[in-house]
Amino acid sequence: MQEKSAGVQMYNLVKDLFPICRSITGDGVRQTLKIISQHLPALKIHEIPTGQRCFDWVIPQEWNIKDAYVKNESGEKIIDFHESNLHIVNYSIPVDKDLDLKELDQHLHSLPQQPDAIPYVTSYFDPSWGFCITENKRNQLKDGIYSVKVDSSIEDGSLSYADLFIKGESEKEILISTYTCHPSMANNELSGPVLATFLAKWILSQKNRRYSYRIIFVPETIGAIAYLSYHMDEMKKKTVAGFVLTCVGDDRSYSYMPSRKGGTLADQAALHVLANKISDFESYSFLNRGSDERQYCAPGVDLPVCSIMRTKYGEFPEYHTSYDDLTLVSPEGFQGSFDIHTDLIRVLEANYKYVTTVFGEPQLGKRNLRQAGGAGKGLSANYQLISNFLAYADGDSSLIDIADALGVYALDLLPVIDQLKAQNLIKLVDELE
Amino acid sequence: MQEKSAGVQMYNLVKDLFPICRSITGDGVRQTLKIISQHLPALKIHEIPTGQRCFDWVIPQEWNIKDAYVKNESGEKIIDFHESNLHIVNYSIPVDKDLDLKELDQHLHSLPQQPDAIPYVTSYFDPSWGFCITENKRNQLKDGIYSVKVDSSIEDGSLSYADLFIKGESEKEILISTYTCHPSMANNELSGPVLATFLAKWILSQKNRRYSYRIIFVPETIGAIAYLSYHMDEMKKKTVAGFVLTCVGDDRSYSYMPSRKGGTLADQAALHVLANKISDFESYSFLNRGSDERQYCAPGVDLPVCSIMRTKYGEFPEYHTSYDDLTLVSPEGFQGSFDIHTDLIRVLEANYKYVTTVFGEPQLGKRNLRQAGGAGKGLSANYQLISNFLAYADGDSSLIDIADALGVYALDLLPVIDQLKAQNLIKLVDELE
Amino acid sequence: MQEKSAGVQMYNLVKDLFPICRSITGDGVRQTLKIISQHLPALKIHEIPTGQRCFDWVIPQEWNIKDAYVKNESGEKIIDFHESNLHIVNYSIPVDKDLDLKELDQHLHSLPQQPDAIPYVTSYFDPSWGFCITENKRNQLKDGIYSVKVDSSIEDGSLSYADLFIKGESEKEILISTYTCHPSMANNELSGPVLATFLAKWILSQKNRRYSYRIIFVPETIGAIAYLSYHMDEMKKKTVAGFVLTCVGDDRSYSYMPSRKGGTLADQAALHVLANKISDFESYSFLNRGSDERQYCAPGVDLPVCSIMRTKYGEFPEYHTSYDDLTLVSPEGFQGSFDIHTDLIRVLEANYKYVTTVFGEPQLGKRNLRQAGGAGKGLSANYQLISNFLAYADGDSSLIDIADALGVYALDLLPVIDQLKAQNLIKLVDELE
Repeated sequence: MQEKSAGVQMYNLVKDLFPICRSITGDGVRQTLKIISQHLPALKIHEIPTGQRCFDWVIPQEWNIKDAYVKNESGEKIIDFHESNLHIVNYSIPVDKDLDLKELDQHLHSLPQQPDAIPYVTSYFDPSWGFCITENKRNQLKDGIYSVKVDSSIEDGSLSYADLFIKGESEKEILISTYTCHPSMANNELSGPVLATFLAKWILSQKNRRYSYRIIFVPETIGAIAYLSYHMDEMKKKTVAGFVLTCVGDDRSYSYMPSRKGGTLADQAALHVLANKISDFESYSFLNRGSDERQYCAPGVDLPVCSIMRTKYGEFPEYHTSYDDLTLVSPEGFQGSFDIHTDLIRVLEANYKYVTTVFGEPQLGKRNLRQAGGAGKGLSANYQLISNFLAYADGDSSLIDIADALGVYALDLLPVIDQLKAQNLIKLVDELE
Repeated sequence: MQEKSAGVQMYNLVKDLFPICRSITGDGVRQTLKIISQHLPALKIHEIPTGQRCFDWVIPQEWNIKDAYVKNESGEKIIDFHESNLHIVNYSIPVDKDLDLKELDQHLHSLPQQPDAIPYVTSYFDPSWGFCITENKRNQLKDGIYSVKVDSSIEDGSLSYADLFIKGESEKEILISTYTCHPSMANNELSGPVLATFLAKWILSQKNRRYSYRIIFVPETIGAIAYLSYHMDEMKKKTVAGFVLTCVGDDRSYSYMPSRKGGTLADQAALHVLANKISDFESYSFLNRGSDERQYCAPGVDLPVCSIMRTKYGEFPEYHTSYDDLTLVSPEGFQGSFDIHTDLIRVLEANYKYVTTVFGEPQLGKRNLRQAGGAGKGLSANYQLISNFLAYADGDSSLIDIADALGVYALDLLPVIDQLKAQNLIKLVDELE
Repeated sequence: MQEKSAGVQMYNLVKDLFPICRSITGDGVRQTLKIISQHLPALKIHEIPTGQRCFDWVIPQEWNIKDAYVKNESGEKIIDFHESNLHIVNYSIPVDKDLDLKELDQHLHSLPQQPDAIPYVTSYFDPSWGFCITENKRNQLKDGIYSVKVDSSIEDGSLSYADLFIKGESEKEILISTYTCHPSMANNELSGPVLATFLAKWILSQKNRRYSYRIIFVPETIGAIAYLSYHMDEMKKKTVAGFVLTCVGDDRSYSYMPSRKGGTLADQAALHVLANKISDFESYSFLNRGSDERQYCAPGVDLPVCSIMRTKYGEFPEYHTSYDDLTLVSPEGFQGSFDIHTDLIRVLEANYKYVTTVFGEPQLGKRNLRQAGGAGKGLSANYQLISNFLAYADGDSSLIDIADALGVYALDLLPVIDQLKAQNLIKLVDELE
């Protein structure tokens, strides 16, 4: 039986993870990381205790929830956490009381513009409770007394996150970061963790690795900040490029979010791959940022981190609602993201500076590298690439620089590099040593 | 009684100064500076004696004039200095003789294209005399003998100029320069001296001043050169930005004249204020220069000086004619220039580099800085500004840099800076110490 | 009798050189260089022996040819080297045998798209033989036995090239390089050697020379590589700008081939001259390179070399065929190239940095440099140039920089420079000392 494509496998993993109720802390996160670790046995899961100071933040108490519902006077559950974990405002405090519609309504959230969608609402740092329902259901609620039950706990505990370090030849590393704090939403955000998982598997399957890889699964914002508070100095020293994985599962468009000032190696590689592989993509400003590049690119942190997404968070109608479900993502959507990101890594791994070993053009004819292009066609395309590569391999220009100068895709130059290396006509300038 | 607007007060001062016959030297300049000093008691008036060498120039003899006219055979004054001091060529030597029309005509200046305008003509360094009249009047002159009288003196004396130094916290200073050598023309050039006067009053009224201010009133060209010959080294050391004030009284357009190479702090601030406050403005090349930026930006001087005007000299039809009178300028025109220049100073005063005090985003929620934007509107505009300001406050970027990156007006960030300073979330990097 | 224009003289020299059968080695090259040396008595002719290693290349055996033909069964010469030396594949080995049409045909080259043109084919490094004929003639060949005779020799000998060194005040030099390896083709490539010859004559005729000149005549590719293998270090130290002369004899367009990265002094001067003298020209990418800039701009060599052509090699239909004959080039075509290149040299010779000798504007009036522009015209164009030149003569800007800033042609500033030097208002900053 043929192995399923990465896209299909990723889609299947999203299906496994979808029902779990996640938050920035709690057992949902642990359960998620445990399932991921079945794919990545070397994944290390860490806990940071409540109260720990992390830069400007403090790790909050841990939130867990068993049940939550609203019953009407007939004892009928009109809102039921077990039907959708989006129904409960994330981090709702325990509640067990009866109240009238007017009071209940102050704790309800819905979307008038999307009357059949349940919104996603959180209240991490402001102790309160609430339920999210569709606008249509809300409008049907009748006067009366409602029984509200939130069987949650907010207690000292810990914040869970995981990381995986894959050793390469160099200490220099590539960062892949994604977040695991969203409840049942597929694109935003199970797509990121699932792509991170399968990228890690793919990286592990490669024979040679120039770079080391740091792959991290954290709750958004506070998790990235907490992680940085432990590892920033090391990451600043070692990270050559990094990518935040988010909203990578739909099949509509491709999007690019730059680092704060742009122009890092991560940005250069991302733009090169997007420009050469994707006919058309959206390029956003850092002013439109919204995920953990906010932390990685903050002043004083300044890691070279950008992001390639499919349709960007906030830009698709299903964003932060119950519509962001298993129908929004697809194996094809995942496969596209997987292919872009494996290309990105391939490009970075091969992105040495190259320099010619002879002055002037080498005599390609005597090495059988000056191939004709077929009847009446002049010299071959391969010869053109070879000749042009040699003309730009000046020891200052990286593979991407050369590919950009030649107007070709960096990966299409790899066979050329192999031919030239075999003839000792170029050598690489490895700036890592 | 309500205080009159700056625009109205400026217009009134122009009315006071308009009748005086000014030149590059002489009592008209002294009288002008004396009236200005009634508004600026700390203004210092200086005299440079005839014969003093100033760089490539020598201070000329002083010119004064009491009367000048041309009478026809009937003894009728057909040209009379007392009707318009533009009638006499500036620096005309004394004359008292009769001559025929042919000879007289060689001393007349008029404008065929503007037959009702009296042109403004000077002859500072070429001893001669002449009268300026309208083309229509000139055409009506009949053959006959005319009596010409120029009751002027050209004698050793001095060149008068004034400056005002306003001390700030720093020795670094902002230069404001304008010129006082034009006879009765309103926009070019009483508008510059009058704006300089009211800017100086406004600067003196401010409580805190980061920068010191050097405000100078000189005759154009030779005055700026003479001033530089005494103060250039000091000005090169201290000047962070400077502005030439000229043609700031009409109400038609706004114009920008860059420094020689552009890109100085003065240019950056001027362009930022113009782009954000004025929907549309003319941007000129330094090749179109024509006022004292010619001296301040000369090779080897290279002060960071540019100019914001209303309609630029040479670009309005009334330029250098009797049409440049009190109807060409207006309180509204002056108010616009005053507002632009006070904004310019406000921006420069606040143009520190700022740096965040925490790594990663601070927790704005616990400081009540993460305000909601009203029903269904997400987070507030104030929160967006705060969040974006923090993302760009990297210690290398000045207020203007940050404002440009954010696409907002620098002055609109001042409340944000106050909120962040109050929370100790940013500190300023003061490069002046 | 009036001396003929450079264009006519150049055309006449092409006519003299056209019949000679040249290659990368052999007596045809020597004969060509000897004729050129009649115009340039100081030209030095050099020989590099067969077998000499030059960077990645080895000097090949020398090829000479006396005769070559194909006879049909009637003894009639159906292909005759003496009718066109393009008929023989350059570097064909000796042949003397009979063969049938099928076998002969494997040694024939023609152009189906240009059925009346004889193509130009070489086989320098692959021992073989062949004939080039028109497609129409080839199609008329009948079955039968053909006698083939190639009376050539490939034997140890040498590669011939020539250079001329013209001493200037400075050791810094300008490189002019062209190639002499093509048989009877006029534009590509007798135009380059002929222009080089007349440029050298013109340079020798100039009274003062700031720069020294290195003018070299080499076979393309291997000759440039061989020359570099002897002189590269010296050339890297001394060369301020260089130009490859090729395809400069037709009268259709002007073209620019940049150095590898562009932006060298050679590029700046070439673009300045083209932009100011030619209304419209083609600007190519270095990816379209094809002549000896391939060697001079190779990584590690990196000489500041670019190329101004008329219609670029490969871009005109007659390229590398018998159509590239004496009707393709013209005195007018040559004169245009001569004028461009003499201007280029004039601009480079005058391309000092200039600096004003006084602070602020000098008083031009007292030096009679503040000329009026004629009735009602303000100040003269000469005054405008003077004033603008002074405003930009800051000691960092070269003549070309200043001319570009002023939007004028550098050579039009030479009279201004003379006037300002005569008044001691500018001095030159000679960075060569």
